[in-house]
Amino acid sequence: MQNFVFHNPTKVIFGKGTIPTIGKEIAKSNVGKVLLLAGGGSIKNNGVYQQVVDSLRANKIEWIEHWGVRANPVLSHANEGIRIIKEKGLEGILAVGGGSVIDEGKSIAAGVFLDNLWDAFERKVNITKALPIFTVLTISATCSEMDPYAVLTNEEENKKWNIGSPVLYPKVSVVDPSVQFTLPWHQTVYGAIDALSHIMEFYFQSKGEEPTTSLDETLILNIFRSVDTLQKDPKNYDARATLAWSAILALNGFSAAGLYGGDWACHTIEHGISALHPEVAHGAGLAVVFPAWIKYIHPLNEPTFLRWAKNIFNKNNVESAVVALKEKYKSWGAPVSLRDLNITKDEISKIAEIIYKATEIRNIGEIKNLDYNDIIEILKIAY
Amino acid sequence: MQNFVFHNPTKVIFGKGTIPTIGKEIAKSNVGKVLLLAGGGSIKNNGVYQQVVDSLRANKIEWIEHWGVRANPVLSHANEGIRIIKEKGLEGILAVGGGSVIDEGKSIAAGVFLDNLWDAFERKVNITKALPIFTVLTISATCSEMDPYAVLTNEEENKKWNIGSPVLYPKVSVVDPSVQFTLPWHQTVYGAIDALSHIMEFYFQSKGEEPTTSLDETLILNIFRSVDTLQKDPKNYDARATLAWSAILALNGFSAAGLYGGDWACHTIEHGISALHPEVAHGAGLAVVFPAWIKYIHPLNEPTFLRWAKNIFNKNNVESAVVALKEKYKSWGAPVSLRDLNITKDEISKIAEIIYKATEIRNIGEIKNLDYNDIIEILKIAY
Repeated sequence: MQNFVFHNPTKVIFGKGTIPTIGKEIAKSNVGKVLLLAGGGSIKNNGVYQQVVDSLRANKIEWIEHWGVRANPVLSHANEGIRIIKEKGLEGILAVGGGSVIDEGKSIAAGVFLDNLWDAFERKVNITKALPIFTVLTISATCSEMDPYAVLTNEEENKKWNIGSPVLYPKVSVVDPSVQFTLPWHQTVYGAIDALSHIMEFYFQSKGEEPTTSLDETLILNIFRSVDTLQKDPKNYDARATLAWSAILALNGFSAAGLYGGDWACHTIEHGISALHPEVAHGAGLAVVFPAWIKYIHPLNEPTFLRWAKNIFNKNNVESAVVALKEKYKSWGAPVSLRDLNITKDEISKIAEIIYKATEIRNIGEIKNLDYNDIIEILKIAY
Repeated sequence: MQNFVFHNPTKVIFGKGTIPTIGKEIAKSNVGKVLLLAGGGSIKNNGVYQQVVDSLRANKIEWIEHWGVRANPVLSHANEGIRIIKEKGLEGILAVGGGSVIDEGKSIAAGVFLDNLWDAFERKVNITKALPIFTVLTISATCSEMDPYAVLTNEEENKKWNIGSPVLYPKVSVVDPSVQFTLPWHQTVYGAIDALSHIMEFYFQSKGEEPTTSLDETLILNIFRSVDTLQKDPKNYDARATLAWSAILALNGFSAAGLYGGDWACHTIEHGISALHPEVAHGAGLAVVFPAWIKYIHPLNEPTFLRWAKNIFNKNNVESAVVALKEKYKSWGAPVSLRDLNITKDEISKIAEIIYKATEIRNIGEIKNLDYNDIIEILKIAY
């Protein structure tokens, strides 16, 4: 087992009917005025917005609303949030939404203390300070509700990059799985695929370190079962709750304990795809990239890929397990090829160039550090 | 799934060679003078003491040593620690040892702010304040290194009771599994049985809530495999590390998420046994009590006990699985009956009376609230 530090200070309040606790939690933290950050308005239809503002009002928390966070959140909208906070003297962020809203919330929370927010994404400055972040989660996927990471797109430079800092752990996250009953089906699926991908980034790099490797397998199987159940019965609370908590365990430190930090090539490749095609959901991109990457990379850590094939799909070779993974994703209605995403063959080299930009600040992949040609090959398999 | 709050702020630094980090962690917390609490002296033989004081010295942390914590730590020794802290103006606790040392450390940390420490165990006062607690773990068992609980024995009143408060989470715990290479075999085994028992307290009360129920099964199987490996190869680092991290996950909130809070009858019964017989290690007592309790209680939550029989021991009925559990414990050299502990039949009623005292402050057991006769019956089965 590799050495590791586990330190996750986020308080997660999990379960049915928990949203009304948010105001009291903010008040307990001595925060009196927040930026309420939100997306396109779905929280007004599912009752979440009303529960949140009722709770804020009951606890005498003032708020300013900043709507319009996009599915792939963008730098310009975050900068606008920073401007509002400075102008109004706000003391914290309340992100109400999914991973995109929370990621932008974290970016804003850090950006308030920086001359130029994007410098942090370029690794030119360290993030050592941030406003306190509170979240009310509406879709389980990224684990942004219990991790210290955020991803943002710089529209002008075609870069979808990330930041991470211990000061970016949310202080309190409220997760009521029942608000996800009414999610469009594809959002449930893409969220689940994102969570599965997080586990797999850690898992495939492992050499079988226990207990994490077998706990990760148990998590993967639980996510599969939950999504299968939800496909028939989207209001099944236990399946929603299992998926929601599993998505948190996928990236809150638990699924990574004692492993090697994760490969993350698939995430970087996907970020390249959705940087060029912002209409591609992160989970949809991952559904396309991961099987192709497994096909390309598995000989370099074969015992772990074989173990996965056996323990997840009861297959004796990796190729068959990749087919089974694609069948599973297809059965949920997810895309499994670049063609399914309406991306043309001509675009492959352009996407590869965007992806390759990330090497300005770090390697792409750990099992193998991918070069430009590797990326082209993986995209061709994905096509 | 039941609603729950997950909030565990302890920073765990885990792995080979991590002990020298402790001084810097204490310094970062602005603590300059600590009570170094320890047991009988084994930390001087295995090199842990030297690593700790070297690290304290290097980081200019002053310390006063308080030796002699017993395997079942006692109130009088804790009170002596409180006196030293007040006299010397110490600012924190550094517990170097196993669960007993850490539990007494937590008791002292809280007791400094109370008129009478035992009042907290009697639920006459709440614990709202404590000195910061740092730990260096030398035996994996209780998870005291990452939980907010402590157990202490009041020798005069024959009571072995517990406290719990969010302020009792250690600030930093350093866990180097390699220092456990030289543990006496029975201590490794009793530690593992304690950890298994924690998981089972939560698990058996469940109705199959996922993902926790299947994650708990995975943890149980990992602990079994680790102990089996260590029996042949006590210096197997990966097995030590798997056991150490699994013992933490057994009681840091993870194994309980979405379940019902745990039954805890077996722990209360064991505390009664070791209150009368302090020579009985907690894990040894649990090895005796748990199989008897399962036999007595399983019809009241039969589906979960059957699932356990099937998934852990591949048995189709609970009775056979109980036999398998006892065989497993016996194969490790653990006692599985009160007779194995040299307790006589005459003592059963006396032990039951001690156990029954706990009803002064709470119920014993949740699957069934045990009355005096239930306790007698379980002890008879255990005999």
